[in-house]
Amino acid sequence: MQKGLSVSDSDGSTFAPLVVLELAPNTKEEAVEWLLKRIRDKQQDGGAELLVEKLSPEDQSTEKDNPNVYMVGASMRRLLFGAEDVGLFKEFNDGTMRSFTCANRHNFKEFQGDGDSFLSMAECQYIIKHELDTLRAKGEAHVPGYPKMKLYPGKSVIRRIQSKGILVQIFPLHENEELKRLSFSWYKQFKLSFQPLDDIRHYFGEGLALYFAFLEYFTFALIPMAIIGIPYYLFDWEDYDKYTVFAGFNLVWCTVILELWKRLSASLAYRWGTLSRKKAFEEPRPGFHGILGFNPVTGREEPLYPNFKRQLRIYLVSVPFVLLCLYLSLYVMMIYFEMEGWVLMIHDEEPTFWTGVLLFIPSVIYAVVIEIMNLIYRYAAEYLTNWENHRLESTFQNHLVLKVLVFNFFNCFASLFYIAFVMQDMGLLRQSLATLLITSQILNQIMEAFLPYWLQRRRNKKAHRRVIKTLADKELPLSDQVKLEADMSTYLGTFDDYLELFLLFGYVSLFSCVYPLAAVLVVLNNVTEMYSDALKMCKVFKRPFSEPAADVGVWQLAFEAMSVIAVVTNCALIGMSPQVKSYFPESDTQLIMWVVAGEHLLLAVKFILTFVIPDIPKNIQIKLSRLEFESLEALKKRKMLEGSGTPKTDK
Amino acid sequence: MQKGLSVSDSDGSTFAPLVVLELAPNTKEEAVEWLLKRIRDKQQDGGAELLVEKLSPEDQSTEKDNPNVYMVGASMRRLLFGAEDVGLFKEFNDGTMRSFTCANRHNFKEFQGDGDSFLSMAECQYIIKHELDTLRAKGEAHVPGYPKMKLYPGKSVIRRIQSKGILVQIFPLHENEELKRLSFSWYKQFKLSFQPLDDIRHYFGEGLALYFAFLEYFTFALIPMAIIGIPYYLFDWEDYDKYTVFAGFNLVWCTVILELWKRLSASLAYRWGTLSRKKAFEEPRPGFHGILGFNPVTGREEPLYPNFKRQLRIYLVSVPFVLLCLYLSLYVMMIYFEMEGWVLMIHDEEPTFWTGVLLFIPSVIYAVVIEIMNLIYRYAAEYLTNWENHRLESTFQNHLVLKVLVFNFFNCFASLFYIAFVMQDMGLLRQSLATLLITSQILNQIMEAFLPYWLQRRRNKKAHRRVIKTLADKELPLSDQVKLEADMSTYLGTFDDYLELFLLFGYVSLFSCVYPLAAVLVVLNNVTEMYSDALKMCKVFKRPFSEPAADVGVWQLAFEAMSVIAVVTNCALIGMSPQVKSYFPESDTQLIMWVVAGEHLLLAVKFILTFVIPDIPKNIQIKLSRLEFESLEALKKRKMLEGSGTPKTDK
Repeated sequence: MQKGLSVSDSDGSTFAPLVVLELAPNTKEEAVEWLLKRIRDKQQDGGAELLVEKLSPEDQSTEKDNPNVYMVGASMRRLLFGAEDVGLFKEFNDGTMRSFTCANRHNFKEFQGDGDSFLSMAECQYIIKHELDTLRAKGEAHVPGYPKMKLYPGKSVIRRIQSKGILVQIFPLHENEELKRLSFSWYKQFKLSFQPLDDIRHYFGEGLALYFAFLEYFTFALIPMAIIGIPYYLFDWEDYDKYTVFAGFNLVWCTVILELWKRLSASLAYRWGTLSRKKAFEEPRPGFHGILGFNPVTGREEPLYPNFKRQLRIYLVSVPFVLLCLYLSLYVMMIYFEMEGWVLMIHDEEPTFWTGVLLFIPSVIYAVVIEIMNLIYRYAAEYLTNWENHRLESTFQNHLVLKVLVFNFFNCFASLFYIAFVMQDMGLLRQSLATLLITSQILNQIMEAFLPYWLQRRRNKKAHRRVIKTLADKELPLSDQVKLEADMSTYLGTFDDYLELFLLFGYVSLFSCVYPLAAVLVVLNNVTEMYSDALKMCKVFKRPFSEPAADVGVWQLAFEAMSVIAVVTNCALIGMSPQVKSYFPESDTQLIMWVVAGEHLLLAVKFILTFVIPDIPKNIQIKLSRLEFESLEALKKRKMLEGSGTPKTDK
Repeated sequence: MQKGLSVSDSDGSTFAPLVVLELAPNTKEEAVEWLLKRIRDKQQDGGAELLVEKLSPEDQSTEKDNPNVYMVGASMRRLLFGAEDVGLFKEFNDGTMRSFTCANRHNFKEFQGDGDSFLSMAECQYIIKHELDTLRAKGEAHVPGYPKMKLYPGKSVIRRIQSKGILVQIFPLHENEELKRLSFSWYKQFKLSFQPLDDIRHYFGEGLALYFAFLEYFTFALIPMAIIGIPYYLFDWEDYDKYTVFAGFNLVWCTVILELWKRLSASLAYRWGTLSRKKAFEEPRPGFHGILGFNPVTGREEPLYPNFKRQLRIYLVSVPFVLLCLYLSLYVMMIYFEMEGWVLMIHDEEPTFWTGVLLFIPSVIYAVVIEIMNLIYRYAAEYLTNWENHRLESTFQNHLVLKVLVFNFFNCFASLFYIAFVMQDMGLLRQSLATLLITSQILNQIMEAFLPYWLQRRRNKKAHRRVIKTLADKELPLSDQVKLEADMSTYLGTFDDYLELFLLFGYVSLFSCVYPLAAVLVVLNNVTEMYSDALKMCKVFKRPFSEPAADVGVWQLAFEAMSVIAVVTNCALIGMSPQVKSYFPESDTQLIMWVVAGEHLLLAVKFILTFVIPDIPKNIQIKLSRLEFESLEALKKRKMLEGSGTPKTDK
């Protein structure tokens, strides 16, 4: 573990600090003492049995510093127990991935001696987070010193003090040495190479590593499309009736890459030990409130909130709100078309260079407005979903994703659909697509990485200046590093990153046959995205807790839904192409019938493909069944040995 | 257990015979002795530890009787161990269903004293079947006396001697008392009541009970449709432009009933303890052959057959064969249409009563030909799928089902699709549908139940006459009962029964809007089907081994595929109705666009519904998660008690 950082334990022994707990500066003394005691108590007594120490800054010069910052760590023994608790999968001696147990820890590949370097720092931090989260109230009726902060047996202490504002934040510490190595191999060398996915996973956990793996996979998958697209653009092939080939290619492409991704992600998840990891029982999310009752599953006391009330909120408030927003978005779209018409009129009256530039202005404005609307809606959706009071974080996330996806999809693509299928103006479609794509990409990159990075640097410089006064050495003392990291912004998860990819995937799969350069643009964007995302993870944000993940979750579904829509859209575009229309000179009806029939056939093939291609590669399937078989056999053997005399009811 | 039947054990104690093993009459003595020894051997020595006794007939008058008939039973203790082996779920004291273990057998609800009546006879027979199937060769190189019948360590003995013809048949015995009770409550009383599903499950196992549950559910689900259909028929509403309402109803109906069935079947499977039962590791099917190698999962020696060879057989032989059959079926259809035209011509020339009757003749002939083709194809498909040499019974079944489904669907519905969408003759469609439906129903009922029943009765009478000579008592002696049952036909599983329901579902969901009486006919058919199926299970066939099942398996998928096709068909029928056409007097194109748009919307809603409606009812979901939670907690507690000192690597 990190050598530079260590704190004196109360017993005089040192421990490596892993996680930082920042309590509100005005927290009452008795509450702090109670919390520390509960964290330090033995597990038999219902405590978390972790090591916790107050951060003692080297210089107390600035009074505005929060004094209530605590460092949490644990003994190696406690961490190993915790690893078993959370069901961590590690590589076994025979090369398979198995659930770690303390009892046969010596059969795991990387377990040497005391197991010091067996768990990565991210894993240790994840374990500590889990142990803190499952630290439950016993007999306390409320948080000591705060009679209004009710507790009941079984309530997670950390979640309660977090939702009540006593716990300001909890975050894992960065590991400077490792971070330097990672960032060097990740984005500091400008050579063509794969991302160091295993290192990313080692440092940030599986959830984030899977995002970067997906980003990279998506980029590579786009390359054939980009290659086909370039000559189309260069030799001006797109006279709107050669794009049927491209549309056909699109159809196959978007089905195949999603299927292959499932297999790749299963391979990665197996290698990282998350594929067959069992999900732990999900606790209510921190913000969930209701009347105290008994959970029918656990039998524990916890707040209950009647489902019908939630349904009422969803159907009477959220759904109408979303519909209203969709209507608004439609309204804005109409304004855009009016502006477009107005500008075109000006240009037609008296075409100069400036009116030519003016032609692009409405699209740019519209693209900016779309981004702003998306941003505002995002907050509204989060607020609403929170208000719906979902019990589990996962259902909360699903409802949020659904709300945001529907709106963003509509907002970004409605105008394109309108141009393509109502106005049937392929020239305008191409121009809009290009403007939308380029503007939103530039905006995104700025908003997402460079702006925060710049803010961060400004802040850091100030902090550095202060620090350098006291210390000439380059390595910061622990207290300063903690302060620096505490000031960094919090990474809110991969949601926005996936959303961006989702929209890009939409632009490419839905309409790229009209504007073949789209794929090229998206590839370029993805490459810069990789660097900017890497930069923001390493430099801008606090280190996030690693999140075990076996797949990209609900996003797989979202991308697949998009690919179904892509089949429909591409078939319609093919049907509208003059080339195809010329085959049916006498009757539109027949043309439409054939297009519809073809589309149904393609959809059927798509579903059959999804069904036929196994989601998990054969070799991993075999490894998984071998493990299962072995455990079944072991169980049988044990029973036969144990039980040979047990039931005495011989007839 | 059955009182009338018991055999003397070698030790002088009696045991209840459960399963009959019939070996070939000319089997060599040493092979028989070896087999019996292996069955009787203790489990520690690799035997099955079952009781087995030769059937000694009361009178050896008829020499043609096979002398090599053996009865297999087991001690209650052995059966309880076996129940644990196969992972039987039984009701626990707290009302939940739990995996039975001998260690806490006294906590199961119906376990009293020695556990005599704890397991039903069907369960005991299933356990014995499982134990016989997993009786494996140890050091034997071949079956004693038959140097050509190779064995290798780990090979299932029973499967080998079965595939080599030494084992003629293996079947469980009927239980006369219970059967009488069951058949009385099932089909002997002509009153409106639900089927005794729990009793059926108790006697025949979960697989068959689920079939009857589905049959009953399907019938009830049809009743609203039948009720709506009757006035349509009576008041002659079907002037072909009022059927849009009916088609719309169809759409909703077929989606909703399939979703609800999933929930109902989950409830039943939970009550019967199969819902969360783990599937045991699947052995290669008896007919599977290949070069000896090592299974990568189990590490056991077993025949291996390269996958690419199987793929070659499938794609180069089976697929072309199926396509050829489809072409043939199309050809027959064309002949039918020619006949139809020819008959119509005769009728038009000189219409009399007899030419009126003649009008129905082609349809009837076609229906009969379809049934015959289905029957022949069924055998061909079975042969081909066998030849494809699938390793597992489940993949074998899937390939067989797929082949048969595609052909039967095509064979039964091609003419209807042709009439509906190419000829667009709704009158003919209605007539064809009626003839097909009625003819195939009548044929099916005769072929499936009454013919075998009649044959069975003739055979039984002969046997009875012989028996009555020796015994005036009504209860047959064991040896005669065994002989009687051995002569009964073997029930080949629920395949054909589900297939019939599948086709009926197709007739109703695809076209019933044109012929609303279809639902009424299918309801009538299903009611008689219930009785005839019950009759055939109780009287015609050997008792089948009970098959644990948690759902209807691949049939759920097949029915869902049909319901998707139904959406497409019904939308097209709606679009073709004069009523809808009159809304778009000026342009066909617009009409088609609207229909296609509506169809896409409906399909989208359908998929969303499938996704949103939970497959398992909430209350069962809660029970399942409670069990899971409890076992997790128990594991945690045990680890904490056991392991508190285990890893001594305290830092």
